Amino acid sequence: MRQSQLFTKTRREAPSDEVSKNAQLLIRAGYIHKEMAGVYSYLPLGLKVLNKIENIIRKEMDKIGREILMPSLSLQDPWKQTGRLDTVDVLMRTVGANELSLAKSDVSYVLNYSHEEIVTPIAQDHRQSYKDFPFALYQIQTKFRNEARAKSGILRGREFRMKDLYSFHCDEEDLLAYYEKAKESYRAVFDGVGIGKDTFITLASGGDFTTGFSHEFQTVCEAGEDTIYLDRANNIAYNKEVVTEENAKKLSVDFDSMEQVKACEVGNIFPLNIKFSKAFNYTYKNEKGEDQLVYMGCYGIGPSRVMGIIVEKLSDDKGLVWPKSVAPFAAHIVSLGDSEEVKKEAEELYSTLVAQGVAVLWDDTDRRAGEKFADSDLLGLPLRVVVSEKTLAAGAYECVERASGTTTQKTQSELTDYLAHA
Amino acid sequence: MRQSQLFTKTRREAPSDEVSKNAQLLIRAGYIHKEMAGVYSYLPLGLKVLNKIENIIRKEMDKIGREILMPSLSLQDPWKQTGRLDTVDVLMRTVGANELSLAKSDVSYVLNYSHEEIVTPIAQDHRQSYKDFPFALYQIQTKFRNEARAKSGILRGREFRMKDLYSFHCDEEDLLAYYEKAKESYRAVFDGVGIGKDTFITLASGGDFTTGFSHEFQTVCEAGEDTIYLDRANNIAYNKEVVTEENAKKLSVDFDSMEQVKACEVGNIFPLNIKFSKAFNYTYKNEKGEDQLVYMGCYGIGPSRVMGIIVEKLSDDKGLVWPKSVAPFAAHIVSLGDSEEVKKEAEELYSTLVAQGVAVLWDDTDRRAGEKFADSDLLGLPLRVVVSEKTLAAGAYECVERASGTTTQKTQSELTDYLAHA
Repeated sequence: MRQSQLFTKTRREAPSDEVSKNAQLLIRAGYIHKEMAGVYSYLPLGLKVLNKIENIIRKEMDKIGREILMPSLSLQDPWKQTGRLDTVDVLMRTVGANELSLAKSDVSYVLNYSHEEIVTPIAQDHRQSYKDFPFALYQIQTKFRNEARAKSGILRGREFRMKDLYSFHCDEEDLLAYYEKAKESYRAVFDGVGIGKDTFITLASGGDFTTGFSHEFQTVCEAGEDTIYLDRANNIAYNKEVVTEENAKKLSVDFDSMEQVKACEVGNIFPLNIKFSKAFNYTYKNEKGEDQLVYMGCYGIGPSRVMGIIVEKLSDDKGLVWPKSVAPFAAHIVSLGDSEEVKKEAEELYSTLVAQGVAVLWDDTDRRAGEKFADSDLLGLPLRVVVSEKTLAAGAYECVERASGTTTQKTQSELTDYLAHA
Repeated sequence: MRQSQLFTKTRREAPSDEVSKNAQLLIRAGYIHKEMAGVYSYLPLGLKVLNKIENIIRKEMDKIGREILMPSLSLQDPWKQTGRLDTVDVLMRTVGANELSLAKSDVSYVLNYSHEEIVTPIAQDHRQSYKDFPFALYQIQTKFRNEARAKSGILRGREFRMKDLYSFHCDEEDLLAYYEKAKESYRAVFDGVGIGKDTFITLASGGDFTTGFSHEFQTVCEAGEDTIYLDRANNIAYNKEVVTEENAKKLSVDFDSMEQVKACEVGNIFPLNIKFSKAFNYTYKNEKGEDQLVYMGCYGIGPSRVMGIIVEKLSDDKGLVWPKSVAPFAAHIVSLGDSEEVKKEAEELYSTLVAQGVAVLWDDTDRRAGEKFADSDLLGLPLRVVVSEKTLAAGAYECVERASGTTTQKTQSELTDYLAHA
């Protein structure tokens, strides 16, 4: 795309009402627009990143589940049935504009912040024989949480994108086998979006297992809300909340020798066991014709949160830095000066790359080099390709990798070859 | 996909609480699940159809606009600014679960049912010079309406999918030129989803134009809420509400000679002119540096409504009938009997088609032929391919087109050729 055709414009100053790095940079670069604390619009560049993250997640989820789309609105009944209507403090409720009080319960609905209450009855409606198990359903959808203080940009929103997967099993053993498979899918997702090597399965409190631990995926990140103890040798981490002498003994680990780092939770997996099947009396007939409660697991990744974590983790003081797999464009052609020859060369390179199917942004605006470079750094595309009188004379483009800053000279064929393998 | 692996099961009886044909059939066939009146989950088959419709729309919209994603939650302020907070009776409002009264205005938000209030400030934030115009933004997103009586299945929901496009112009002339372009895009969409020939641009009341008419797209359909007068020769229709003697004179048309039919509104286009730019004081600088109000247009198509209209319009007493472009699978292999040879043949055909990239569903279940055929009719895939001892002996599959009922014998190469061109 020609940058002159891009809807958005960058801005020099971060909005004064944003304290988080991710919101500041994404707004400055024109990726998102703030509607209110914790609620953002995704503008063309931002939506491209979000879609890429969601499609990487979708690809892995399709291997272990079936995609569906559940609604945001729900009756109160299923939330009463599980007892969560009164216990989930972030649950939002909704009514018609003319019905001013939620106390009139017959007109008020719940805005789902999670979908166990919705997916369990759906599963129950279609699968009730042991022959029907196991199976898993997932969705990628907008969710709502009434966050008291939403100050973390798209890291923790009042409205946010969520991938939630639910698995259904005849017994705990089958659930645990699937649970391990889901872990591997999650690893593939985090590798896919470019934060795999700094993301660790982390033992946290609150699990239903006999060990008493739950599992979450934590990504090393300065802006993180959690502190984790890293056991790099064993590729595992421990949430600070479980770092006790007792647990050190129980797990035979030495917390003192581990590195302490700030981290962001980027995904969680949870064996629900029979908690929700019991609430909805979701049973299946076993081989003897007996009714047995279904075992369930749930597995979440927030695509918008992942996007925010990537920004917090990889950006630098010049701007955004996107991994190749989620960047809105693979390359940023920056043509300098107003020589007709340079313009012609840039246009030709742009057309060639587009014809080859490379997603490329071309800064075709009439601005000074300094302004263009600052903009390019802020936008954070993986490779900047400079076309100028100097590069014309050299017979090769100046190519700068955004992440490493590495500069190389590449002829057109070297460049297209590089981008084809990027 | 093997039907045994499909999450859903079909059911013989329509749910007793559904009066609309679309909801009855879609639920029986396992495409959707009812959460409450006007709110449905899209199960794997239903989500495939919805995604196909949305992608056909997206392809056309990408030619005339840029995709963004706006939120469902909004502050009250922009809705107050346009005066619509109090006038839109279907607007939903939301609060945290612990804040029981919407009267506490500082804690209540709006659930957007349309996005003029959101998109206008976004556009204003990025484009303020005459050089920046025209441009258009669109989204495909979930919307909310507090429908008093939601009895039309996915035709008119409390929560529904919507494509809304907004265009921005320096003057009315440019808006009108774009408006005509949007009409053509809409025609392409309705052709694309398979209802083009029965969909008409329809003059309705309420326009801002000097003529006093607005334009909507109406599809001929028994279940329609509107009555239209069809002028087939001129490929145009008139909503009954504008059929008056006065208008006959004004438009030089003879309503009496026209066919009266029931129709469903399937899309609308509307010149907003300066209504919203005025409310937000969205001006641009013209060449002389003067501030001028921006002209806007809005253009809507509801993908879930389109899906419902396709069902209402094309299905028959045996079940769903999907146009090829939106069908969840192109073909339905139905293997009959328990001969090992038939199973082997069906499996080989299935693998061959999958390898060729054909989306195919194979009924690999052990059920009677009658049951399988009834199921196949209900699911409504465009082509049924029967594999049985009889077809093995004949050396060709029995192929039945769902829409026409036409039966032909096709060898494997004839079948793959047919599907490649379907």
